[in-house]
Amino acid sequence: MATCTLLTDFGTRDWYVGALKGTLLRLAPGVVLVDVTHDIDAGDVTAASFVLGGAALTFPPGTVHLAVVDPGVGSSRRLLAVEVRPMGVSGGAGSAHVFVAPDNGLLTPVLDGSLVHAVDRPDLYLDAPGHTFHGRDRFAPVAAALLRGTALDELGPRIVDPVRLPARPPHRDEARGRLEGHVVHVDRYGNLVTDLPGSWLRGRLSSARAGTVEIARIATHYAALEAGVPALVIGSLGTIEIAVRDGSAALLTGIRRGDPVTVELSP
Amino acid sequence: MATCTLLTDFGTRDWYVGALKGTLLRLAPGVVLVDVTHDIDAGDVTAASFVLGGAALTFPPGTVHLAVVDPGVGSSRRLLAVEVRPMGVSGGAGSAHVFVAPDNGLLTPVLDGSLVHAVDRPDLYLDAPGHTFHGRDRFAPVAAALLRGTALDELGPRIVDPVRLPARPPHRDEARGRLEGHVVHVDRYGNLVTDLPGSWLRGRLSSARAGTVEIARIATHYAALEAGVPALVIGSLGTIEIAVRDGSAALLTGIRRGDPVTVELSP
Amino acid sequence: MATCTLLTDFGTRDWYVGALKGTLLRLAPGVVLVDVTHDIDAGDVTAASFVLGGAALTFPPGTVHLAVVDPGVGSSRRLLAVEVRPMGVSGGAGSAHVFVAPDNGLLTPVLDGSLVHAVDRPDLYLDAPGHTFHGRDRFAPVAAALLRGTALDELGPRIVDPVRLPARPPHRDEARGRLEGHVVHVDRYGNLVTDLPGSWLRGRLSSARAGTVEIARIATHYAALEAGVPALVIGSLGTIEIAVRDGSAALLTGIRRGDPVTVELSP
Repeated sequence: MATCTLLTDFGTRDWYVGALKGTLLRLAPGVVLVDVTHDIDAGDVTAASFVLGGAALTFPPGTVHLAVVDPGVGSSRRLLAVEVRPMGVSGGAGSAHVFVAPDNGLLTPVLDGSLVHAVDRPDLYLDAPGHTFHGRDRFAPVAAALLRGTALDELGPRIVDPVRLPARPPHRDEARGRLEGHVVHVDRYGNLVTDLPGSWLRGRLSSARAGTVEIARIATHYAALEAGVPALVIGSLGTIEIAVRDGSAALLTGIRRGDPVTVELSP
Repeated sequence: MATCTLLTDFGTRDWYVGALKGTLLRLAPGVVLVDVTHDIDAGDVTAASFVLGGAALTFPPGTVHLAVVDPGVGSSRRLLAVEVRPMGVSGGAGSAHVFVAPDNGLLTPVLDGSLVHAVDRPDLYLDAPGHTFHGRDRFAPVAAALLRGTALDELGPRIVDPVRLPARPPHRDEARGRLEGHVVHVDRYGNLVTDLPGSWLRGRLSSARAGTVEIARIATHYAALEAGVPALVIGSLGTIEIAVRDGSAALLTGIRRGDPVTVELSP
Repeated sequence: MATCTLLTDFGTRDWYVGALKGTLLRLAPGVVLVDVTHDIDAGDVTAASFVLGGAALTFPPGTVHLAVVDPGVGSSRRLLAVEVRPMGVSGGAGSAHVFVAPDNGLLTPVLDGSLVHAVDRPDLYLDAPGHTFHGRDRFAPVAAALLRGTALDELGPRIVDPVRLPARPPHRDEARGRLEGHVVHVDRYGNLVTDLPGSWLRGRLSSARAGTVEIARIATHYAALEAGVPALVIGSLGTIEIAVRDGSAALLTGIRRGDPVTVELSP
């Protein structure tokens, strides 16, 4: 049976999640719905993009991923359907991941090498009294069409200019032995996830700095940290994190998403 | 496979949701469970009713909806099983929605035109040490019986006096060009949802007032609003909402559920 | 189809829950995933254990329960696979519950009479850049193996010394007519759940004391309580709770998990 993941900022106190699920089950009978999250901060496309990037490709090929964080709902922003073929997976129907989302950068982590279509199928959309809930009225019917086997080609033309979130790639200065990146996510434990690849460290940490905080330690896992002392850990996405044992590095340090992080390597 | 939606105020930190789901899966093997919400404020039957009204009928006919917001658990309040046949859907098993809930007004939005039964089947109820968790001990077994194909007639007698939440319908005074209603829900974005049908506006907004707030603008969607200025929008249930772009109208205005809203129409 | 319950402290704002679910669906195609909770306080093994104890055995035998609250992730703590055969259920595959969890006491409520195996199957584990997310990289693949039919014997040796949470059983002093226990959980309604069996009361409540609060009343259900007055209720696990009608006993009394509770019985 086809699987459809759900990632939204709808929260869980309203009728939005229920109406999204009900519409999908009505239009794609038998679909298996999987909640990824509905607790993205309202309108936080950056966080949605990050969570999508960490979760989506763990699902089996053939999964449809519906992601609706859509502050531009009702405006002329496009609706995208995107096919992503994971590295090493080839051929045949059901061998790719398919994403449905607004064209606002949410899909940035999966756009490289993907096929992007701008959906243009008003015949699929539901009649609705307003223009504030395209999740129910447009995204769900489009995802349902894909789940019923509709091909991307039938949904609208290929495009090459989907919106991407601004890129600010991390930087490695080998000559000076310095790595420069940013905090890109703060998780529920208060870990400060950076965009610096852990592989850049190669065990050569001399010291790190984030805001006014100096960090001189590194560990392989949280329980190996000294209590109350921020340290570096290679996290589950392969990037450097700043963590505190049994506590929140974010609360302890005051560092926030977007703040710069510099790592000095020993020679 | 039969589908059962879940709407409760159990929260998500306790064993209550797990025990509800486990009992349903044990007594109705293979049932597909769908979370609508478990984050209704404790005992807030009004909010539960509103969320149910916005979500339930988006599901396919044949769905069983289990809704447990039940401050009267253990008292003599009745347990209802209700059949709702959406407009235009006729005949046959599986062609109606079925609701299971306490008789406390929660089902108000779906009662008109429905068949209401008061459940009287102690043989179905689970033995339990206390009287505080009818969700697990009574509602789940009754829902499971329905999911296994038991007819409503077998659950208990039809009744005609289910509890309804107090009605306070919105009012349209054509002579004076005035609409009078109330805020009936505040959503997670801080939008103030009213009970005023958007169709009553017909583009004739002169001004609106809610509490001490004057509103002079209307837009088709949130992104068309001016930042920081409350405006009217026709929301996803077809009613007038007060919204603020990229912000919370509830926080900005201090307006709360139950507050009156008046709209003056231009001639 | 095999069912797998999920109980974690991952929260619902990150990619962790999605990556756990995606990995399970990829490695055990067709598994039915059921969220018990992801909102255990970060690292609170005691709360996780309590919620597991209240929910797990309501599911049908054959269910696999994956529970990951794992502050020791990446350390040498063991990974357990545990078979639990509910009282009165005998024989055959699929007739037992199976639990997968870290060896940190989380499974305490189901250990008595169970078969415990220490998992030692590095061949199952996923390659990962770090050591911070064994939920995705180790627990999910092990649970998936069980869901595909792998026997516990194939996962690693039986052990007899799984970690248990410290036991502090409640005490009944018949001679003095006194019951002594503790608050073991505070639920989302603010009910103070104790470890005192309700059967010890036998309607003989004289008075109860918790902290500086004296309680002289008992009721069969919440709606029978007098507003604002804490009283005893036999809760859904069969133990004595301290509750307040339409309010939070925890907020009203300041009593917290771990606080002692004494009940005096009338002769």
